Order: sequence, then structure tokens, then C-alpha cells
Amino acid sequence: MPAKTNAGRFFEDYRIGEVIDHAIPRTVSGGERALYHALYPARHALQSSDEFARACGLAAAPMDDLITFHTVFGKTVPDISLNAVANLGYAEGRFREPVWPGDTLRARSQVIGLKQNSNGRSGVVYVRTEGVNQHGRVVLDYVRWVMVKKHSADAPAPDTVVPDLMPAVAPDTLVIPKCLDFKGYDFGLAGEPHRWGDYEIGEIIDHVDGVTIEEAEHMMATRMWQNTSKVHFDGTNREDGRRLIYGGHVISLARALSFNGLANAQMIVGLNAGAHANPCFAGDTVRAWTEVLDRADIDAPGAGALRLRLVAMKDGGTVGALRGGDGKYLPDILLDLDYWALLPL
Amino acid sequence: MPAKTNAGRFFEDYRIGEVIDHAIPRTVSGGERALYHALYPARHALQSSDEFARACGLAAAPMDDLITFHTVFGKTVPDISLNAVANLGYAEGRFREPVWPGDTLRARSQVIGLKQNSNGRSGVVYVRTEGVNQHGRVVLDYVRWVMVKKHSADAPAPDTVVPDLMPAVAPDTLVIPKCLDFKGYDFGLAGEPHRWGDYEIGEIIDHVDGVTIEEAEHMMATRMWQNTSKVHFDGTNREDGRRLIYGGHVISLARALSFNGLANAQMIVGLNAGAHANPCFAGDTVRAWTEVLDRADIDAPGAGALRLRLVAMKDGGTVGALRGGDGKYLPDILLDLDYWALLPL
Amino acid sequence: MPAKTNAGRFFEDYRIGEVIDHAIPRTVSGGERALYHALYPARHALQSSDEFARACGLAAAPMDDLITFHTVFGKTVPDISLNAVANLGYAEGRFREPVWPGDTLRARSQVIGLKQNSNGRSGVVYVRTEGVNQHGRVVLDYVRWVMVKKHSADAPAPDTVVPDLMPAVAPDTLVIPKCLDFKGYDFGLAGEPHRWGDYEIGEIIDHVDGVTIEEAEHMMATRMWQNTSKVHFDGTNREDGRRLIYGGHVISLARALSFNGLANAQMIVGLNAGAHANPCFAGDTVRAWTEVLDRADIDAPGAGALRLRLVAMKDGGTVGALRGGDGKYLPDILLDLDYWALLPL
Repeated sequence: MPAKTNAGRFFEDYRIGEVIDHAIPRTVSGGERALYHALYPARHALQSSDEFARACGLAAAPMDDLITFHTVFGKTVPDISLNAVANLGYAEGRFREPVWPGDTLRARSQVIGLKQNSNGRSGVVYVRTEGVNQHGRVVLDYVRWVMVKKHSADAPAPDTVVPDLMPAVAPDTLVIPKCLDFKGYDFGLAGEPHRWGDYEIGEIIDHVDGVTIEEAEHMMATRMWQNTSKVHFDGTNREDGRRLIYGGHVISLARALSFNGLANAQMIVGLNAGAHANPCFAGDTVRAWTEVLDRADIDAPGAGALRLRLVAMKDGGTVGALRGGDGKYLPDILLDLDYWALLPL
Repeated sequence: MPAKTNAGRFFEDYRIGEVIDHAIPRTVSGGERALYHALYPARHALQSSDEFARACGLAAAPMDDLITFHTVFGKTVPDISLNAVANLGYAEGRFREPVWPGDTLRARSQVIGLKQNSNGRSGVVYVRTEGVNQHGRVVLDYVRWVMVKKHSADAPAPDTVVPDLMPAVAPDTLVIPKCLDFKGYDFGLAGEPHRWGDYEIGEIIDHVDGVTIEEAEHMMATRMWQNTSKVHFDGTNREDGRRLIYGGHVISLARALSFNGLANAQMIVGLNAGAHANPCFAGDTVRAWTEVLDRADIDAPGAGALRLRLVAMKDGGTVGALRGGDGKYLPDILLDLDYWALLPL
Repeated sequence: MPAKTNAGRFFEDYRIGEVIDHAIPRTVSGGERALYHALYPARHALQSSDEFARACGLAAAPMDDLITFHTVFGKTVPDISLNAVANLGYAEGRFREPVWPGDTLRARSQVIGLKQNSNGRSGVVYVRTEGVNQHGRVVLDYVRWVMVKKHSADAPAPDTVVPDLMPAVAPDTLVIPKCLDFKGYDFGLAGEPHRWGDYEIGEIIDHVDGVTIEEAEHMMATRMWQNTSKVHFDGTNREDGRRLIYGGHVISLARALSFNGLANAQMIVGLNAGAHANPCFAGDTVRAWTEVLDRADIDAPGAGALRLRLVAMKDGGTVGALRGGDGKYLPDILLDLDYWALLPL
């Protein structure tokens, strides 16, 4: 009998242009939302309150945008990153439609780039992934590239194709949720008075608070998204028994911490770039800061977009310090995430 | 640019009579209920079963009363206790309407007392807090007083106002949920045969079981209520890496443990007083006991009220032993909570 | 006053034929499902996706079968196993109807066997337990036997009655969910291509992945089922502070791990036998393997049944090695579970 378990794909198993339909569609509910609030200090009012969301023109509170991201990402792991050495980057991410309790999400990815490493033992795979809801509408798409092991060093190298990726999503291509209207936005209920116009390019915001991570928390979060990458769950992989924390856990933690100073950055609409600069482990205390990179007018009543660099760092890091003299990320840096958010004018 | 993060209010920032509308309304669902059952050994049938609740006249199982309390309390933290030195007490708490899955809660507080400490560096703030649902109806109100730091020792002391608080909520002012009817109460399904009339004033009940607390559990619980007090989450605050546990976590733990002996104390309707006698940390094993303080007839079919002192203690404490010869709480005592509960006659 | 707390039943308190109605009916929701996915690496598509379930003829995704099992089992603990020395076995288990979000479950047990041990200090109690939904329909029944302490060694031994139990549920008595239809089954969305016919009797499947268990996780899981057995929660019971893990936690963990190789074993319909071979503690890394014991045709469109032996072992165990030369379970073995599952043809 051939083995029935999934050994994952290796670098030589990918072909340019092929489309992979990922398995296990997933219905989300108020349960996933409650867990999200228990696992991260998430407080944005639009995702916390049906009433607040209705006052902003939506039918009810959407799921946190990162629930959408993690659910879709988790679907791709068995096909894309089971044999990954490193998750290298994100680009051209757009949130195209909110996800609501009761929605069912699927995911598919197209291979858009392949580049074997010079050592011949691994290569970089670029995929464009789409999350699709039960109506067949895309809720999120983004490009991700990962370094994947080869199964056989003798497998021939494919033709190198490196996609031409935009350094940032053009603001006029961001998708604004239908009916969203911030003209009557209640800053008091949202928790902070700062409007879109109050943020200046170059401004750096210290989000102040820190969270010390426990093994049980990051494993529950990662499992919830049906992410099966074994390094997150199996303590026998390392001598110290610690498990490597899913990079997305750090993204959600940092985004939730950023409420303090960015309470009105209610929705993530674009994902421009992202790097998991250093590994994160249980026991680390995570802090976050944000740099305002850009501002853009958008076609939505009462709303504007900010391009933000969200940085997560371990305790000991310095707000505003990202790279050393050698241009490399400082050892305290965990995450460097570049995204577009919607704020009230 | 002025800092965009919330530094919290200091003692000199409060004015007698001012009303603070707290931010971030919150919609609760079956997700919060499931997590409550996972985080605490909660077993009261009225909150566990839609069918049991319907047999008691309600439309469905209400959320646990303490979910209401924690959600409302959590909303107040950024405005009331971010710079608190100590949470000193509760009084005049009444649960006025059940909360159901799908409800959205807001909170507001009025400052009803101010008293600067003689050292000039802190003061006591008294607030009356209301939780309000999406229909604008009050679901809970209570008085809380906290000791809050002054930002500047030079800030002038306000006129001292200490509110005149009732030692206990008068039983004829307790609010009984509409339609509640315990006349056909099923003691078998509820788990214990003891009726209201079976409890005697002065009786002490040992709830027997103990729960050893993990960091991940109390952090998830506290985050779920969007309680942002950093001492609960940031392990770098103390050399031993432990985080101070939210007092409300101990309240819920003790209340859930009290099922064993008080399975029919189905609803909390009044909160007379409460003291967090000593800090609680992960690794502590919590046990609980109850003293019956009073009994009262109430205007509800088949139901009576008991006034109960619920005590939580660390392992090593003695059931019934609360204070030492000096009148102070014994070092093993974590919580001394005085509340009214409804039981079937 | 007599003590109001439940000391649990002792061996001499059971009578052949008596029926015990267990307390605390429980309504389950999407919250319990979300937590199940956060606590176990559960990925079977039928329980993950309303859309996938509809394509298989069901109205929506049912709750995981083991949620039903744990909820019913948890109800029985205060009456059956509070004074248990050991949980000895399961037999004749049949899942008779799916459980859906919103359902309310009750449980009752009939005593069908009693056998005092030769030491006179304990005895074995056999019960047949039924889980019943709000419509009064049985959703699950199974036989369990436990060794229970005697309260008084002097209590007379009852007449020995040992029920005649089937070694396995006969496949023609398995209950197939109404409307289930696997004729249009989507193997791509389910995650693996292996059909019922691809599995051979005697085949052994290594499920590969391991999960290192944390205290917070098994306690949250066990509490969620309102299982009150104190050994799972109270760290003062043992010098090392560890808590004995609920055997059902290992069942769910192993079943979820078995997705890798058995992704299409979508539903558990029969529970033939089960043994918790050795205790499990936090820090253990759990792996799983399955032996195909039997295959059976069943009367359901497009579906067949496999009888599977699911084995959980601690790190260090060997796939396929179950018992030593003495016929006893090897020390690494945690669980030996024999069940029937439905797969697409």
C-alpha cells in the first residue's frame, strides 16, 4: 500500500500556472469571534459590536479581517508550506468582502513564480491565494512566497519565473465594503478621538502594552485556523520543548495591541508587505509600534486610508528601531507588516 | 504631535457628577458562553440549557450573570482603573435584566465620590456604573471604588465626597427577571435537592473542589472581557514572570465552584459587597466556601432569595476562617463576596 | 445540617436495573464547535463546513461526534465516576442522530452490571448510558464500566451480574444519519483521495504528527463538557502539581490526528471498545496510529463502514506496537479505541 498520509509538496512538485484547490471548507461563527477576543486583546468597535457596525452602514459586525486571513492561510498550509523552510513575504493583499458569522470559506492558490536556490536543495514558490465564500465571491486575495525544500536534489530546476509585484497596493484599487459609511462615526464609542487627518506621514506610535505569550494560547489560535504545520504543536522538535509560534499569531497580537493609538483604524483593506523577522516563542513578551507610511483619499463616505507599518518586537526592543547598520532586522524584531487601514475622516 | 495612546485618567481628572460613556460596545454570543464554560467549572442549569430555562419561564438560557458583570466591568477599565493602585470595593449592585446571545452591551459611569488620601499622592474614586443593552435598558448597575494615582502631587485636592452606600441591597428592591417562575422547578435536572428553605442563616458550605490556575486561562478570560489592565498580561512587570490575576477571574471561579452545595442558587440578582483580599497568581489552587448571611421572601413565583458570603481561598486555607485576631483577612483569603441569589422554594 | 455537597456514589449505592437521570441539560452552539477546533487539530470537512455537509445531504454541519460523546459522558460523571478508581471500558456504543448547534442534550444511565472485587473495597459498575436531545430522541448510547470505591468495606456484596456485551457493534445495526449521501462526495475538498475500498484489513496507518499537551488545554476541554472529576483540575493532588488528563481528551486528540490518513472517515457511528492504557499528563507529546480491523457494507448511498483501532501513544512509542510479550499494553500506549466510521465508497 502507498502511504495514506500527506507528506506535503516539495519544490519540484509545483508548476507555473497550476491552480491548487485547497481542502476543508470552513464555516465560521460567533464562536470563532469569541475565541479571537479571548486570544488577542482585540477591541476595534466595528468587529466588537453589531450596533456600532450598523451605525457604520453594515448589516452587523463583520468578523475581524485577520480571522479571514488566518482561515484562508490555514487552508493553504497542507499544499504550500508543509515542507517550507521559511515564509518569505506577502504582497498585493486585498480584503474584498467582509466575512460574517455563518459564512463558509474555501481557498485556492495559483503558482505564479518559481526560483530554485543556488544550493539546489530548495527553492522559492510564489502563489496568489484567493479566499472564496459560499456565494463564490472572493473575500481576500494575496501573494505569498515561501522557501520550500526539494525532495530530491537531483530534480531538475524549473525555469525561473519571478513575478513582478507591486511594492504596495495602489489605494485606488482598495475595495471598500459595500454600504460602509463613516459620516456618523461615533468616536466616543470607538475609544479614541483621532481622525484620519490627525495622523502624519512619518509619525511613530508606541502602542505601550505588552503581552507575554503562553504555549496554550498560540497553539489554540493556530489550531483554530486548521493550520497543520507541525513545528507549532510538537514540543519534541526542539530540545527546550518550545514550539515555534505561527507568524500569524504575532500579526494578530500586534494588530490588537495597536488599538492603543489606532482605535479608529477599523478595517484592514490592503496587505502591502510582511516579514517575520525573527522567530517567536512562548515566554516572549510582545510589544508593538506603528509608523505612518502614507495617506490616501478613498471613495467611501467619511473614510480615508492610512498606510501603516506595524512592527512587533520582543521585550527589550526600542520603539522606532527596525534595522541595524547592516540593513538587517534587529534581533528583537518579530514582525514588519505593511498594510492599508480605513479610518473616519 | 501629542501622544495618541491612552494614558488613563488620574485622580485629579475626575469631577463629582460627571458621566463617562465607556467605549467599545460589545455583542455577545454563544461563543462567549462556551468559553465561559471552558474557563470556569460553571454548571448552573439555567445558564446551561435553553430547555431548562424555558421550563423556568424564560425565552432561552440567559448568559451567566457574571458574563454581564465582566463585560460591563471590562468596558470601564480604560477610564476608571488604568492607573488604579487597588480595587477597593463594590456595593449596591443589581442585575436588572438578563443578557442573551446577540445582545450588545455598553457601559457608562457617574463619579459619585472623591476623597484624596492623606499622602497627597492618590485618592479614592467612587463610581456608579450602568451596563446598558441595545434597547437602552439597564442590565446591571453597581457602585465601585478604586484607589487611583495622582499624576501630579501638586494638583489640588477636591472637596471630599463619600457616598452613603447601603451595607446590602434591600431585598424588596431586587429585580426579578420577567416571567421567571420556579414553581415547576426540576431539582433532579438542576443537580441538587436543596431548596431555599433548606439553607439556614449562619450555615457554612464547603464547596470541596479545587482548581489550579494556569496563566493561559486567566489571560484568555480577562481578554475576553476586553479588560486592558496591563498587569494581567505583561510578565515583565514582575521578576518571577507571573501576572496578577484579574479579581473577577477569582469571582467567577469561586461562583462556579459553589455549584457543589448551591446548585440551585441559579441567578445572582444583587451584589452587596466585595473585597479582593489578597492577590492571586497562576499556580494557586483556589477553593471556595459560602456562609449563608440572610434569607428573604421575594415577589417571584416559587422563588426566594439568599444572601450569601462567597469566599475564595488559596490551598491551605480553612473553611470558615476569614479574618485573623487583628480583624484583617487571613493571608490565604482571595475573595470575600456578598451577593443575593435566587433559589426555588 | 447534612452536608449539601455531592460526595458521589459509592459501589454499594448502585442497584441492578436502576435508572439514573443525570443533571444539567446542556445546549451546545457554534461556540463549542469553535473551541473544539481550537483544542484539537480537527479537520474533517463534514463537521467543518455547512456547505460540505449540505453536499452530503445533511441540513448543515453536525457537531463533531465526539462533542456529543463528551457532553453526554460529562453529565454522567457526578453520578457514576466521582469515586471511580479506574474507567475500565466501553462497548456497544452507537451514534444514533447527529447533534446540531442549538440542540440541548440530557443523559441517563441504567445500571446493568455489578461485581464486587475480591478485596471487598471496590467493585465494578456497568452502566448503559443514553444521551437524549430536546426532542426526546436518543443521540448516542453506550455501555461503560468503571471500578468504584466502596464507602464501607462492611457493606454487603451485591449479587454479581456481568452483562453479556458484544465484542463489536454489528455493522447492520449501525445507525446512518438520515439523508446522508456520499454519492457526490468531493474528495478534493475533503483533503484526501482514499476511498473506503482503498483500505485493507490489517493495514496500519501512521498519522505522523505529534501534539504536546498543555495543562490549560486539557482543563479547558474537560471543563467544557462539565466533567467535574477533580483529578483533572486540582494540582495539589500530586506532588509534581500535574493533573491527570481526562481520557476523553486523548480520544479527541488521537481522532483529530488521524485525519492525516483518514480524512474521509467522516463520521464515527459505532464505539466497539476502548481502553485508557496508561495515564496521560501535560508535557506528553501524543502521536497516533490506526489499524484497519474490518470493513462492512452499509445501507447508505455511496458509503461504507470501516472498523478501526485508533491507538494513541506517547513520544517514544512505535507505530504498530501495542502490547508486550506479557500481553499487557506497552508503557507508551495511552489509548486503544475500537470504532466504526463511515467513508465514501
